[in-house]
Amino acid sequence: MKITPWEVEGELDYDRLIKQFGTTPISKDILEKLKDCHPILRRGLYFSHRDFDKWLKASAQGKKVSVIIGRGPSQKMHIGHLIPFIVAKSLQDKFNCDVYIPISDDEKFFVKKDLTQEDAMKYSKDNILDLIALGFNPKKTFIFQDFVYTDIYRYAALIAKKITYSQVKAIFGLTPEKNIGWSFYPAVQAAHILYPQFHTRPHLTVTPTGIDQDPFIRLTRDIATGKEINLEKPTAIHSKFIPSLYGESKMSSSGNGVIFLSDDPETIKKKINKYAFSGGQVSIDMHRKHGGNTEIDVSFQYLKAIFESDDKKLEDIKQKYEAGLMLTGELKAILIDKINAFLKEHKIKKKAAEKIVSKFIIKNS
Amino acid sequence: MKITPWEVEGELDYDRLIKQFGTTPISKDILEKLKDCHPILRRGLYFSHRDFDKWLKASAQGKKVSVIIGRGPSQKMHIGHLIPFIVAKSLQDKFNCDVYIPISDDEKFFVKKDLTQEDAMKYSKDNILDLIALGFNPKKTFIFQDFVYTDIYRYAALIAKKITYSQVKAIFGLTPEKNIGWSFYPAVQAAHILYPQFHTRPHLTVTPTGIDQDPFIRLTRDIATGKEINLEKPTAIHSKFIPSLYGESKMSSSGNGVIFLSDDPETIKKKINKYAFSGGQVSIDMHRKHGGNTEIDVSFQYLKAIFESDDKKLEDIKQKYEAGLMLTGELKAILIDKINAFLKEHKIKKKAAEKIVSKFIIKNS
Repeated sequence: MKITPWEVEGELDYDRLIKQFGTTPISKDILEKLKDCHPILRRGLYFSHRDFDKWLKASAQGKKVSVIIGRGPSQKMHIGHLIPFIVAKSLQDKFNCDVYIPISDDEKFFVKKDLTQEDAMKYSKDNILDLIALGFNPKKTFIFQDFVYTDIYRYAALIAKKITYSQVKAIFGLTPEKNIGWSFYPAVQAAHILYPQFHTRPHLTVTPTGIDQDPFIRLTRDIATGKEINLEKPTAIHSKFIPSLYGESKMSSSGNGVIFLSDDPETIKKKINKYAFSGGQVSIDMHRKHGGNTEIDVSFQYLKAIFESDDKKLEDIKQKYEAGLMLTGELKAILIDKINAFLKEHKIKKKAAEKIVSKFIIKNS
Repeated sequence: MKITPWEVEGELDYDRLIKQFGTTPISKDILEKLKDCHPILRRGLYFSHRDFDKWLKASAQGKKVSVIIGRGPSQKMHIGHLIPFIVAKSLQDKFNCDVYIPISDDEKFFVKKDLTQEDAMKYSKDNILDLIALGFNPKKTFIFQDFVYTDIYRYAALIAKKITYSQVKAIFGLTPEKNIGWSFYPAVQAAHILYPQFHTRPHLTVTPTGIDQDPFIRLTRDIATGKEINLEKPTAIHSKFIPSLYGESKMSSSGNGVIFLSDDPETIKKKINKYAFSGGQVSIDMHRKHGGNTEIDVSFQYLKAIFESDDKKLEDIKQKYEAGLMLTGELKAILIDKINAFLKEHKIKKKAAEKIVSKFIIKNS
């Protein structure tokens, strides 16, 4: 198991990660408070947190709380990329809170060898539309690009002074051959995480993020309360990875195991039917007899995490599939319909987002 | 002899520095072309350059050229700080060119342990007034603060991708215990040096700078013509250091050997009379007999470099002092009058600068 903010390899043991990172498992009490939220939040994909109980408490007491979740723009967004933003939207709906979305075109530029600055900025604009399409409240959602809203540099500098090269080398496993953008970027990322507090006033924020990004959270918590910064430690909730169609531990843009938001219905149908790892038996007879395994079936995992919000319907699918009453092809057909319906609506909303994008963008001071 | 952009120690051997840094001595041909310029330029304080002959040639051919010289804001400016700006003003007058002045409050913040960001930004505003007071043309002079005009971050990022931590470690002698601002800053500094070309179009720029800052010039020349940047290599002229009153090789803000722009006439008189290292003899009789040494006399050096622009008058002082006709006290009295006249006018102009400062400031895009 190898896990850094830029690389995830091997079989992931999430219990071990909780111990290794020193985070806290999501408790039943927390899950109870999220019961009206999106399935992603209430069905266990988010398994770990740092101080999220304090965030919930502050919100219940009527104190200001917010969500901060960034996006490193790549050429095209896929389903896996959407997860923290669906969560952010769900938290906004449930707790009526502000959401901040920094777009780190700088990080992608530093880290991707062949990406030009111009292209990084272009992809930012495209990805922003994908995010707005999720239905965020324009009065409570603040988006900025690092290469455009470069005021973030001033905040990053404030933080950079508190972090040594030795520290970022140790935390992120940097080698001296990396460009100097890599080692400075953790300060920018910490500035993102603290941004809602710089923007208004000290308050509790939560970042829904993959567990691989936790080193940024940890680093930011370490410096948040220090001299000249004087903010609250940010809280976080950590998700497991949504698997690729093949069942690998993290969906990646390379290969066929990925569902892009731009895929057309025929492509979705082909990809799911051809590549989605099945928990079914090797023959129809065997399947009827022994039933399928929903634990490893990727199509079922997608329905559970994102696409089937009705708990009763999901339970019905689970029982039928495990009993051998539903075949893999039938299960896949349900998922194909769900994804295509979602993407059809997404494309319409993305087009509409072009007209309202300026309502979300923070202007340079 | 130890020389880095942040530390200058020991006896300086400028001929050896030319060889060590691989720069070119200022030729008679270049000096001839600067004969109408400020004494600082025409009397040998600038002793070395990189491609400044090309800059002069481009200017003579009617091509666009410009001057770029930055200021790291400290609490108060002293006479030594003014030198490159007096030169920039003189080049602007003579060659009718643009002058760009980035104020690197970020660098000072990263490097000075106890400096707060707020104070760095406050000192920037004060120092900007000192610079405008020199009489720059508001239509041809562009000033910005890194923490305010943070668009500089976008350009710095473009450059940062081309520089590894190993490189900046080797060039600037950084240790891993330095904060990550130190190692990123060379990219910001390179963005300053290339800024005039980003701002308009590729053209030859010159940076008048202390030889200690040349590593930034060298680094910037190395990356200027590369992919995605495509600019001209910046040129530079290098100055020796103006000595402290004690005759040390570089005027520094600490101790009594410094003349601040804010010093009052009485302070100037006391400092010069008490601390200015004299090239005179130990007694009046000895002085009348053997004469003084203008080579080591700090008061004479200040007159030569900055305060006595009339070549004939300077020669007259030199002859009288060396012949023992002029005493140290008389030489110092001339300098005291000159400095106080300069500072009196400077204070008036600095006050007036408050009203026109906005004409010089570049706005964020």
